[in-house]
Amino acid sequence: MIGFIGGSGPEARGLALRLSLQGESVMLGSRSAQRAQLAANSLPQHATSGSIAWGTNEETAAESDIVFISVPFSGHASCITSLRKYLSNKIIVDVVVPISFSKGHVSVITVAEGSAAMQAQTLLPESTVVSAFHSISANDLLVPNKIIDSDVVVCSDNPSATSQIIGISEKISGIRGIDGGPLENSRYVEHFTAILLNINKIYAAHSSIRITGVNTESRLE
Amino acid sequence: MIGFIGGSGPEARGLALRLSLQGESVMLGSRSAQRAQLAANSLPQHATSGSIAWGTNEETAAESDIVFISVPFSGHASCITSLRKYLSNKIIVDVVVPISFSKGHVSVITVAEGSAAMQAQTLLPESTVVSAFHSISANDLLVPNKIIDSDVVVCSDNPSATSQIIGISEKISGIRGIDGGPLENSRYVEHFTAILLNINKIYAAHSSIRITGVNTESRLE
Repeated sequence: MIGFIGGSGPEARGLALRLSLQGESVMLGSRSAQRAQLAANSLPQHATSGSIAWGTNEETAAESDIVFISVPFSGHASCITSLRKYLSNKIIVDVVVPISFSKGHVSVITVAEGSAAMQAQTLLPESTVVSAFHSISANDLLVPNKIIDSDVVVCSDNPSATSQIIGISEKISGIRGIDGGPLENSRYVEHFTAILLNINKIYAAHSSIRITGVNTESRLE
Repeated sequence: MIGFIGGSGPEARGLALRLSLQGESVMLGSRSAQRAQLAANSLPQHATSGSIAWGTNEETAAESDIVFISVPFSGHASCITSLRKYLSNKIIVDVVVPISFSKGHVSVITVAEGSAAMQAQTLLPESTVVSAFHSISANDLLVPNKIIDSDVVVCSDNPSATSQIIGISEKISGIRGIDGGPLENSRYVEHFTAILLNINKIYAAHSSIRITGVNTESRLE
């Protein structure tokens, strides 16, 4: 089971939708079970879809093997701390970008640990934190047939977890996963989202990124 | 005339080569005029190439209308400060990335002003600093027929200077210029180079970036 903490938000719903359409069993969690149920019911399903479960964040964290964290950065540390006991020995996929919006301006929030992902790893020493999916538009994910024209840069300190999340990312049509190295590199990927959001404003776009010049078959283990 | 401070380095030589092949007059500057001459003589020329001049950094800054800064970050502030009187009322294109290499590991150097480009603007209050070209491989630029499969994100506080540098970047085959917003955004582009250098190591690649989902004709002025 792949669970989503903060599962009523658009990024979580978009990722859950795309993975369920590929046959994965997903679970949407929210602080309110009712809101999670509404979110789950909002997702279209096909005959071949995996199951879409719902529950509180605690239930979702407890029942999932891989847990996505998709909450606003303002609630990131407290949310993770409250779920710590359910997250031990699991892969935690942190998709959170530490930015704030004020009067249309996007600012990166300084994180003492260096990045949202490093904050999560500090708070979850018994989990394997992987950072990924920072540059994928939730709006695009929520349109089932839309091809996602983007690479996903995946950072973690555990190469096998990185490979596993690259594999999950590539279940979504159009996505290519790229190993971005250790978790400390996540800050650069998180921050680049601020540039993409500025570009979105300047060009009225939903921008994303491709890494060119890389043959993924030549990955050095 | 387009001048290059630190013109004996590979990035400057690569950019000067590509622009001269498009008919632009370029000038390579170095602390030593002799080294600048060697660098200029190393560049292949075609019948339609623009002139390739050379001189000291001071001569190059004085004689150029647009001045590229392409020095290691360790010499960035002192180099710019020493040339200040030649750079007033000109467009300064800062391509410097504040990173250091140690035992194969790439680290971003913290810059008090926020980024190399912001440091340059602080030191050059009478110049228009534009940041660009952070993700283009010098090795690729130096191969004249190699198509550069990359976007160049351009940041400055002067939209008309941004447009001018986007135009210059697009003289190089395969490059598309993207307006990345104000100069304070440069830090995110500079830092992303650290991810690209890590990816280069992991995949034995010369990586670069494309911004997807953007129609440059829809740029809002």
